[in-house]
Formats: sequence, C-alpha cells, structure tokens
Amino acid sequence: MNEHQHKSALSESQSNNSSGNVSAESAQRIRDSRRNKSSEKSLLKDLLEGNKTALGRSITLVESNQLKHKEMAEAIVEGALPHAKKSIRVGITGVPGVGKSTFIESFGSYLIEQGKKVAVLAVDPSSSVSHGSILGDKTRMEKLVTQKNAFIRPSPSGDSLGGVARKTRESILLCEAAGFDVILIETVGVGQSETTVHSMTDFFLLLKLAGAGDELQGIKRGIVEMADAIVINKADGDNQKAAREARLEFKRALQLYPPKPSEWKPQVQLISALYEKGISEVWEMITEFKSSTYKNGHFEHNRQEQNKFWLFQSINDHLKSQFYNDPKVKIELEKQLRLIEENKTTAFTAARALLKLS
Amino acid sequence: MNEHQHKSALSESQSNNSSGNVSAESAQRIRDSRRNKSSEKSLLKDLLEGNKTALGRSITLVESNQLKHKEMAEAIVEGALPHAKKSIRVGITGVPGVGKSTFIESFGSYLIEQGKKVAVLAVDPSSSVSHGSILGDKTRMEKLVTQKNAFIRPSPSGDSLGGVARKTRESILLCEAAGFDVILIETVGVGQSETTVHSMTDFFLLLKLAGAGDELQGIKRGIVEMADAIVINKADGDNQKAAREARLEFKRALQLYPPKPSEWKPQVQLISALYEKGISEVWEMITEFKSSTYKNGHFEHNRQEQNKFWLFQSINDHLKSQFYNDPKVKIELEKQLRLIEENKTTAFTAARALLKLS
Repeated sequence: MNEHQHKSALSESQSNNSSGNVSAESAQRIRDSRRNKSSEKSLLKDLLEGNKTALGRSITLVESNQLKHKEMAEAIVEGALPHAKKSIRVGITGVPGVGKSTFIESFGSYLIEQGKKVAVLAVDPSSSVSHGSILGDKTRMEKLVTQKNAFIRPSPSGDSLGGVARKTRESILLCEAAGFDVILIETVGVGQSETTVHSMTDFFLLLKLAGAGDELQGIKRGIVEMADAIVINKADGDNQKAAREARLEFKRALQLYPPKPSEWKPQVQLISALYEKGISEVWEMITEFKSSTYKNGHFEHNRQEQNKFWLFQSINDHLKSQFYNDPKVKIELEKQLRLIEENKTTAFTAARALLKLS
Repeated sequence: MNEHQHKSALSESQSNNSSGNVSAESAQRIRDSRRNKSSEKSLLKDLLEGNKTALGRSITLVESNQLKHKEMAEAIVEGALPHAKKSIRVGITGVPGVGKSTFIESFGSYLIEQGKKVAVLAVDPSSSVSHGSILGDKTRMEKLVTQKNAFIRPSPSGDSLGGVARKTRESILLCEAAGFDVILIETVGVGQSETTVHSMTDFFLLLKLAGAGDELQGIKRGIVEMADAIVINKADGDNQKAAREARLEFKRALQLYPPKPSEWKPQVQLISALYEKGISEVWEMITEFKSSTYKNGHFEHNRQEQNKFWLFQSINDHLKSQFYNDPKVKIELEKQLRLIEENKTTAFTAARALLKLS
C-alpha cells in the first residue's frame, strides 16, 4: 500500500506524460508526498551530521504506527543505511535491582571520556502497559543525560515484542548513522526480550549481583548460555568476598557450555558501578572481543546472520498477524479451540478447517 | 483442495439434481471417492478391533504425501478420535549408546507381562537421510517385536520436523484407538526433536549413562528442565558407584529448576536395562505421575494445551510453507538475501519487498 503511494510520486517526477487525467485526490497525494520528501531530506541531512534532535525525530517516525510516518521512516532508514556501520552494539540484561541504570551511567560516562559517542536504547515489551518502565525515568542517569555525546531513548511501546524489536533495530541504524559508535541496548528480561536483544547485538552482557547462597538459582535458562560476559555488580564493601565466590561459581558454570561460534570465551568480571570500579576493564574486554571477532570474521558474519534472521522474523510475524486478525478466522478459531477442549477434533483437522478460510 | 473433492462426492449423494451435466472426470472422481469411503470404513473397523495390520496400514496412509491417501487418513483419524483416550504417552530420549533400545525392550516386555498393550513410535527428523536410523532395525528389540500386544513402528520420514511431528501425533491417536494403552515415543535428539516429543507426551524420560567425570556435561540445555525423570542406565557391575554418584549430582541439578506446572517433582532412578533391574520401579513412578496429575487436573489440561499448541503450530507451518514455496518469492528472496549480505538493504525493507509479492 505505502509502496504504491511512494511509486506514484516517483514516476510522476520522472514521467513525460501530461497530467491532464490526474485526479484531484492523486494530485493531493503527490503534493503530500513531495512535501514529505523534502522534509525527509533535511531530516536525514541533519541526522547524518549528528544532530540529536533530528535523530530523536527520526526515531519518533520509526516508532509511529501512522502510515504516513512509516513511509517517511522507511525513506530515512534507507538513506541512513549506507552510513550506519562502525559501531559496537552491546546488549545489557539483568534482573531489576541489579543496578543496570547505575552501570550504564558509569560505563557510558567512561566511554564519553574516552571520546566515544554513546547511544542508550531499551527493549521493554511491557512498556506499553507500564509506560516505559526502563529508561523512562532519565533522571536515573543524571550525569549521562547531560552529555553532548550521549543519546538516551526509552523503549518504544508496542503491542508485541516483534513490534518493539523492529522499532529498536531501525533505531540502532539511525543512531549509527548519526555517528554513535557504542550502542547500549538495555532489557529488563520480560518474556523473550533477552533473546530478542541478543539477536540484535554484537556483545551480550549479563549483569548479576553478588549475593549469599546459590548464585545459579533464579537465572532464566538460556541466558547464561547467550552471555559473552557475566559482570557481577556491587562488588564493594562487605560484598567483596561473596562477589569473588560468585565469580568462581559462574566460571565453573560457563565451562559446561559448548564453545561459541565466535570462539570467544565468556568472561566473568567484578565491578562496582557505584564506586566506578572495574568499568574500564569491561570496555577493554569488549574491545578485545571486537578485535578478535573482526579478525576471525565472526563479527561481520554474525551481523549478516542477524539481518537474515530478522528478515524471516518480520515475514513470519506479518503472515501470522494477517491470518489471525482476519475476522472470519477469529470466529472460527474460537469454535475450533472449543472443539479441541471437548476432544471432538484433532489439532490437524482444526488447522485444516481454519486454513480453508484464508 | 482435498476438501473440495470430498465435498463434491458428499453433495452428489445428497442431491436431487439430475446428473446429466456431470462430466466423465467428475464421475470418476465420485467413484474413486466412494471406493475410498468403503475401504476407509472397513480399515477403521479393523483398527478399532485392535488389528495390527489395519493399524500399520492406517499409519502408512497418515505418513503418505499423496493427496488421495491424505483424505483417507483424515477420515480414519477422525473416526478413530472418539476411541483414542486412555493411554499414557511416554517420551524417551538420550544420546546414542545410552541403551534406549535395550531399555524399551526391557520396559516394553515388562509392561506386556503386566497385561498392557504397548506401542513404540519414534521421532527422528534425520530419518529421511539415514533411512530410519532409530527403530529401523527392529531386530534390536527381538523379544518385544514377537509379542502379540506390542506394536513397533520406525520414525516416519519427512522433509521437516514439523512433518514428522504431524505424522507421529496422528499415529499416536491411531495406536490409542487400536487399544494400545502405553505409547512409548523414542527420539534420538536431533535438532529440536526432544522439544517436539516433549510437546506430544504426558511423561518425559531422559535416559543417561553413569560415567566417570562431569555428569552434567554434554546434556543439551533445556532437556534436563523438560524431564519428568532421569533414568540412569547401565547401573550394574563396576558402574554402580559411578551411577550412585551421578544420581546425586542430577538430584542436585534438578533442585535448581523452578517447580513444574504439573507439581511433579522430577525423579532420578537407577536401572540396568540389560539385567532388567529397576524396570518395575520406572513403571511405578509413571503410574504415580499419572494418578497425581489426574487428580490435580494437570493431565487433561496438559493434553488440551498440547492440542492447542499443535493447532497453532500446524497453521503457522502451513502459512510459512505456502509463502516460501511461491516461485516468485523464492527468486526475490535470493535477491534480497544478497542485498542484505552486501549491506544494501535492511531486514525490514527486504521483508516488505517480499510481502508485496503475495
């Protein structure tokens, strides 16, 4: 649909036809489209110059569900793409209370001191309910937020993790095109959100707390396996002994996993985000990861695989939503689910009955 | 498509129209359909009487990819459904060499001595390549295979795990309709096959070996979490000490997992399939599981959830295969994947280009 509108404007500007049979409506559409085109162009120009206001406005377009905005967003993302390259994308997860905001505040500030430009994004599929629970309150990063070279953006809202993911993926590209070279993507770990963030980042960092008792307990299965580093926060004061024990336990746990395709051996580090201890070591580790995966080709290969994954993901999401949002399907689905509950049909017969409708 | 053919026969037999305008082709179709109907009926009758030849032939229809067979299979499965109820479905997994065949031979024979009728199926998505690597060689269960009350069937072949899964699910129903009350479903653990078998069984049993060294090593993540029991095989002779140690280690590992929705606490048992030790205890445990999950409602609820899962799974598989098998999509997909590799498009723009085609 939006492709159509797009094209008609394009072909008009290139065509030699007389416009005698252009209807009033399509003339309006062409005028709108031209206006959008020119504002797109200047927005993109500002964005590529590193203007944070332009970046923010572009992300707002990406996040919008309005058709007109979607078209503009697509054009801007496409224009930004050739310039979006040289960043490192770091995923950061950890349960609430582990100190993610404090860590990002410390880590981000350190990176800016090193001359980096740092963008902080978030993936929180629950944010449409809680109105942006993570990063929504920017004051939690009061130092970082005042920095010229920092850009902080709360999680987009969305009906589904898929929608949030798409918006975040496109926002990453826009940040990169605006010259940000470290992109931190925070997630709070609702549902599948860690897997989602893992599939859009180069380096995945699990933030943990040193605590008494069983350190392995309470970690969602699969998260440790995804981690390139486990960073144990609040390793200060009375906590230091527990933190060292936790490190040992995690190191042992990590040995149980098969080697990663990146050939990177996940590391366990101790930090104190509050006292800014161990922060530079985290960056050294990430730099080491980047250079070793650049060298063995994994870095580029992984990004391509991620892009392909997202291609298939987007298509499959679309196919499903198209099918299940069909009003006929909705009615029949309810009926078939009831028949299943009453043991009156098999899953496959029910599926066939539903597929006949589309 | 097959629905169509079905209906035309049905409406013909019920209609009052003159058949003057029935073409030769459709008359043939009607005759075929009538013939199929009568052979379906007698096959179903034999199946419901517990005839193993009829069961085997019905499963062959379920496994066939021919349209005509699919129609017959659907009718038979539908006819069998009201009679398919009272079994327990046990999934059995474990790495090659752990002694799955020997265990099934011992366990199956024991069950038959207890007056049970035992069906053994397999899910092996690699079997289309290896021509049925598990259960293909029935002689590995030489005792069981001669039993009147045992039915052994190798894995269906299929292009995809989804196809194999559908065929196995329908075969389970047919076995149950034929009066088999214990259904053992073996899988060798290729790709996602354990998850697949887990989602079609009531009780999931992980077979392990007692061995020196780190017992947790080498287990695919998520498998232990799915298990209702870990059964350590070859706990005989010199192995007994190692087996007891392995049991302790697994018990400790199982405590790390959150409680199951079934409220069942996974157990660790020692057996020697070869010397037929510990076999009756395995059955006692499964019986206990069945009665406790019947009581708390989990058993029935879980089956319904599984049916619903398979409903959505079938639909989603179909939507995807329909889309990706479109020749236009195939050509464009190759092109878009190349553009992604060259960093010339985003995953989402590529997805939009592909979705425009359908």
